Amino acid sequence: MTETKIFNIKKKILGKNDQMAQNLRDEFARHNVFVANLVSSPGAGKTELLQATMQELRKNYMPAAVTGDLATENDARRLTKSGSLAKQILTGTMCHLEVDMVQNAIQDWDLAELDFLFIENVGNLVCPGDFDLGEDMRVMLIATTEGEDKPLKYPTLISTCDVVVINKMDIAAAVECDVALLERNIHEVRPGVPIFKTSAKKGFGIDAWTAFLVDQFEAKKAVAA
Amino acid sequence: MTETKIFNIKKKILGKNDQMAQNLRDEFARHNVFVANLVSSPGAGKTELLQATMQELRKNYMPAAVTGDLATENDARRLTKSGSLAKQILTGTMCHLEVDMVQNAIQDWDLAELDFLFIENVGNLVCPGDFDLGEDMRVMLIATTEGEDKPLKYPTLISTCDVVVINKMDIAAAVECDVALLERNIHEVRPGVPIFKTSAKKGFGIDAWTAFLVDQFEAKKAVAA
Repeated sequence: MTETKIFNIKKKILGKNDQMAQNLRDEFARHNVFVANLVSSPGAGKTELLQATMQELRKNYMPAAVTGDLATENDARRLTKSGSLAKQILTGTMCHLEVDMVQNAIQDWDLAELDFLFIENVGNLVCPGDFDLGEDMRVMLIATTEGEDKPLKYPTLISTCDVVVINKMDIAAAVECDVALLERNIHEVRPGVPIFKTSAKKGFGIDAWTAFLVDQFEAKKAVAA
Repeated sequence: MTETKIFNIKKKILGKNDQMAQNLRDEFARHNVFVANLVSSPGAGKTELLQATMQELRKNYMPAAVTGDLATENDARRLTKSGSLAKQILTGTMCHLEVDMVQNAIQDWDLAELDFLFIENVGNLVCPGDFDLGEDMRVMLIATTEGEDKPLKYPTLISTCDVVVINKMDIAAAVECDVALLERNIHEVRPGVPIFKTSAKKGFGIDAWTAFLVDQFEAKKAVAA
């Protein structure tokens, strides 16, 4: 197997995914659904952030989530339990979501009834980078427990993200995380990217983060109108 | 691209890797080098554990490490700074190490002079599972900060591991980790796997973990003799 051959195969798979993603993005736009793709390491708190975010959004909007994992329906169950519309995607041995999985997961939902769709990707700092899921915004979560150097060591995925959320702020001091250094490292790899700081567990910073999402949603709707 | 075609391509790449890995394993055996492949999420503390482990081993043995990252030479620099023999492998956009990268990295070293070789894989709970690196032992690190459910949600890689190290024990209480539950979940996915509990940062549990490694090394040498 030559390098060129592998490259061509990869290009073919990605090309098909990107075309489907563009079609899905058009469909989301027709129905005024704002779509965010959440990526992070395993255990950064994606589900916890979604619980808090969707609870806040539900006061005025209709959010839904699909959540990807290799195994277990835990995440969708957690979201459903807290009152949100959610569906699990099981990827088996796959390290990322592809757009056809998202399309299958949402096929029973009426997009006209939704305002926000959150796609919780598989916990992985590398592989989700190549796969457009038709989202409006790609969000990277970094927990204060992961070490300040992670943006520098895993630059490829964060370079494709539109916004970064630093989560687990409540234990930043306990785990001796230098948050200012982490922010500098994020901006070194992705200059100017907006950064939000939250503790999804304690509810800290959720208001500012949610207000930002609502702004993005309203802006998208205004452009479409 | 059909599923069968993708499967066949994957089989071909893996087949070549596995053959090279077997050759490298034979070479390690000829020189009595005990080899451990460390896998984990990003930020679980692989480099910190290696610093502490190699410092302890250096009292009586000659350990070395190769460490994989997408970018930065930080990890090898940290290990070298603490007095250990170490080399960085940069993977660019790749989510795992393959055996030819390891082989290239160690080509200047005389294996006859080494007792232990540690391979620090790319931080990723999925992709390294498919790639044999010629190791004697595959070690999974799980930090108490990641949540007790991770073994259940990412079962494929842990199922290929010979031993699990629960790290960041010093902050288990601060991050409200139920360590007993984490251990039960590990054993649900990988029954009977030995579990060590460490705080690489504080030096806790390093003695028992290092004694275990020395036992494995001596056992391998005894079989070879």
